[in-house]
Amino acid sequence: MSKGLPQRSNDFSAWYNELVKKADLAENSAVRGCMVIKPYGFSIWENMQSTLDKMFKESGHKNAYFPLFIPKSYLSKEADHVEGFAKECAVVTHYRLKADDESGGVVVDPKAKLEEELIIRPTSETVIWNTYKNWIQSYRDLPLLVNQWANVVRWEMRTRLFLRTSEFLWQEGHTAHETKKEAEEETIKILDIYTKFLEETMAIPVLRGIKSENEKFAGAVETYCVEALMQDGKALQAGTSHFLGQNFAKAFDVKFATKEGKNEFVWGTSWGVSTRLIGALIMSHSDDRGLVLPPNLAPNQVIIIPIYNSKEDYKKCLEKAEEINNHLIANNIRSEIDSRENHKPGWKFSEYEMKGVPIRIVIGPKDIENNTVEIARRDELKKEIIKENNIDKVVENMLIDIQNNLFEKAKNFREKNTKTANSYEEFKKIIKNDNGFVYAHWDGSKETEEKIKNDTKATIRCIPIDKKGDRGKCIVTGKDSERMVVFGKAY
Amino acid sequence: MSKGLPQRSNDFSAWYNELVKKADLAENSAVRGCMVIKPYGFSIWENMQSTLDKMFKESGHKNAYFPLFIPKSYLSKEADHVEGFAKECAVVTHYRLKADDESGGVVVDPKAKLEEELIIRPTSETVIWNTYKNWIQSYRDLPLLVNQWANVVRWEMRTRLFLRTSEFLWQEGHTAHETKKEAEEETIKILDIYTKFLEETMAIPVLRGIKSENEKFAGAVETYCVEALMQDGKALQAGTSHFLGQNFAKAFDVKFATKEGKNEFVWGTSWGVSTRLIGALIMSHSDDRGLVLPPNLAPNQVIIIPIYNSKEDYKKCLEKAEEINNHLIANNIRSEIDSRENHKPGWKFSEYEMKGVPIRIVIGPKDIENNTVEIARRDELKKEIIKENNIDKVVENMLIDIQNNLFEKAKNFREKNTKTANSYEEFKKIIKNDNGFVYAHWDGSKETEEKIKNDTKATIRCIPIDKKGDRGKCIVTGKDSERMVVFGKAY
Repeated sequence: MSKGLPQRSNDFSAWYNELVKKADLAENSAVRGCMVIKPYGFSIWENMQSTLDKMFKESGHKNAYFPLFIPKSYLSKEADHVEGFAKECAVVTHYRLKADDESGGVVVDPKAKLEEELIIRPTSETVIWNTYKNWIQSYRDLPLLVNQWANVVRWEMRTRLFLRTSEFLWQEGHTAHETKKEAEEETIKILDIYTKFLEETMAIPVLRGIKSENEKFAGAVETYCVEALMQDGKALQAGTSHFLGQNFAKAFDVKFATKEGKNEFVWGTSWGVSTRLIGALIMSHSDDRGLVLPPNLAPNQVIIIPIYNSKEDYKKCLEKAEEINNHLIANNIRSEIDSRENHKPGWKFSEYEMKGVPIRIVIGPKDIENNTVEIARRDELKKEIIKENNIDKVVENMLIDIQNNLFEKAKNFREKNTKTANSYEEFKKIIKNDNGFVYAHWDGSKETEEKIKNDTKATIRCIPIDKKGDRGKCIVTGKDSERMVVFGKAY
Repeated sequence: MSKGLPQRSNDFSAWYNELVKKADLAENSAVRGCMVIKPYGFSIWENMQSTLDKMFKESGHKNAYFPLFIPKSYLSKEADHVEGFAKECAVVTHYRLKADDESGGVVVDPKAKLEEELIIRPTSETVIWNTYKNWIQSYRDLPLLVNQWANVVRWEMRTRLFLRTSEFLWQEGHTAHETKKEAEEETIKILDIYTKFLEETMAIPVLRGIKSENEKFAGAVETYCVEALMQDGKALQAGTSHFLGQNFAKAFDVKFATKEGKNEFVWGTSWGVSTRLIGALIMSHSDDRGLVLPPNLAPNQVIIIPIYNSKEDYKKCLEKAEEINNHLIANNIRSEIDSRENHKPGWKFSEYEMKGVPIRIVIGPKDIENNTVEIARRDELKKEIIKENNIDKVVENMLIDIQNNLFEKAKNFREKNTKTANSYEEFKKIIKNDNGFVYAHWDGSKETEEKIKNDTKATIRCIPIDKKGDRGKCIVTGKDSERMVVFGKAY
């Protein structure tokens, strides 16, 4: 049945790894920690990119491209930033190889040593703010709303496909503003875009909030985030939007002439989501048969499989399949036929289940007689025979229904797995037995946060911003707490 | 008039550099040889990408993503390949920095030295063929048609924005086939795509041919290319498509089971175009007032500028401008209004000339009275007053006309600057005085090619494939020559 996928309930982690492989999404490369994103996986990323890119552009952002390399000294200019990233930097020290007569291979040419080492960007604040210094002179140059799609490198010791890789793909937005208020509004505007994208396109409900000091971005004043809950009850940080205050403007001396003729530091934001979202997508919706894709992101929304025994049937079934396929494509549905003869129908059924194609249409000789087709939906694994007239409407509605159903299922799951702990005992029990999001009072101190982490591996996922809670007492120290925060074990 | 651009006829190189800067296309970054592609320049690249990407997909190619890093030992597996790229490789030797108590900055952590150094990809044949080894088992897995959009690094000593930078953006296609014939056909299919893209989208006529041994890609059996002629008479290699034979299949042991059950090496191709094309675009069409963009690539095809003196005029002109703008956008024309009040009309005229916007529409109080607009085209710097009814048709036709006109102009220029040399004296005179493409007989030897290069700086741009010429005698040695080849000084 499951084509060899481990079951989620037995071994979630093995299930994930096998699914990524069997659905042809990605694989490990020969370079430790770096992945190859395979064509099917990449086409999902392309759909994510094009939806997000449109949203960024509609809200006034433009794309640009900044260098892969960052001079080592730049990192040190913002104290927290270097502290946060120095330990995971890939460093370029030389710019030439030379033939090695001994081995017959090549060796690094010691004469080609760089005067200053270059870091492969782990994120681009430093190189971008160094550029903004020349782009910004006056209030007329603001706001500056720029995004880039790029690869970044953070050297990871323990890696997992999509979730944590040494090289990953992402978008990083970097904006500059006249006032604190405008920069804060931008931070929230992007959080809203991420929320809309995750909920409406990816069908993943998110919790929105602010990170604690411990968890915030190295160099930010405040990090806003969207957090999602995976099927194993672990939390996944899906996107972050940072209010940078004037930190990078000060580090790189970026000032502007105000309307009143004063000279002031600009206010900044930065924000990003990455190929990690593909991991979130898999772990939110998929099942023991394989990937389940929300129709809004699926490379193919419909797969049509003709079934026949005789040569005569073959022609008729294929004709009908092509007719329906063309009709669906004309209605802007991403449909495809699999008429390959070297694979049996059963093999194809498993294959497209594994790949998460939302709708499967099967056309056999009986369907030709009756003007019907068999239509099956991936999310509920249900099938039915329908009349073929109006098939475009049926498919269209079913796609909408699948999209909504996946979101509702994920939302119900999250609600069932969101709990409140009124004591530390209760907290520890929930984390140990159930995982999930746990609301609890916290005294706001780094020490308490670390104690909880050491005891339970749970961290503060965020201080929620959408509903204010009541005041209370910290579950660990009993000290005053302004409001509950949300804990969880995180990817 | 020219807003400070040097004139092409005085100093082509200074004109190019200033134009790239003043049209807001790109600038040098703090890292030597790496550029920042600014939003306006990047939006041109995005248009190139989306057109090419569509052509690749329509011809059956899929995108994927392979790692930035290549283990050093991979390079050595194909002998010519390592020879060609070893001297310009950026090398990662360490994966961590640490605090330096002395300087207060960070230094490379000597304990974090990689066992095997990693090369930043100068091109991805090695890492991709190492992956294909696992993807290809049987003829059923072929053809494998994959492309990636990526950044690559080739350490350059003398760099120029877009034309030669240490990091650049490109696409690289890598395909694998059952037979030699199929791989050769793929090589030509891609050359046709590049030709169509350059001629129809970029309005740049190209010469198509094969590279000499000296100039071919390190690791290829045969390199096909499209060559363009710039306004200063220098040639620019715009794209290459390589027939790799079984070279990389053998280097990485990539075999497949044939239909007949034999085990054979697969046949390969690779092909690419890069951000260098933006340099070709600039040097093909632009003039002393700035950039000239073919409408098919222009981020804005039309700019509308309202002109007024009184408050009352202001309202009317802006209303009319918006009405026309919306009408054009509804007709799929990329139109925009510049209604900024802190810039004078004259300033705006120069600005959009510098940025190469194909059509400028000006609306003043008189136009409101007469139901007219002033329309000006960037390519010929001509303007006229037209009735505003049917403006969508007028604009549409004018865009087509500009696109064709740019191509015809470039083609005429190339024809005027393509000559035939029947003796070495004549050859040297043409190269010295006129540059351009020069057809001449060559004996096919590396020595003669190098002598010509040393004497004149001209190289063989290609052995043309679209018209066979007659046999003759080499202009240098007098030895037999099968056909004329094309020489030129190259970027």
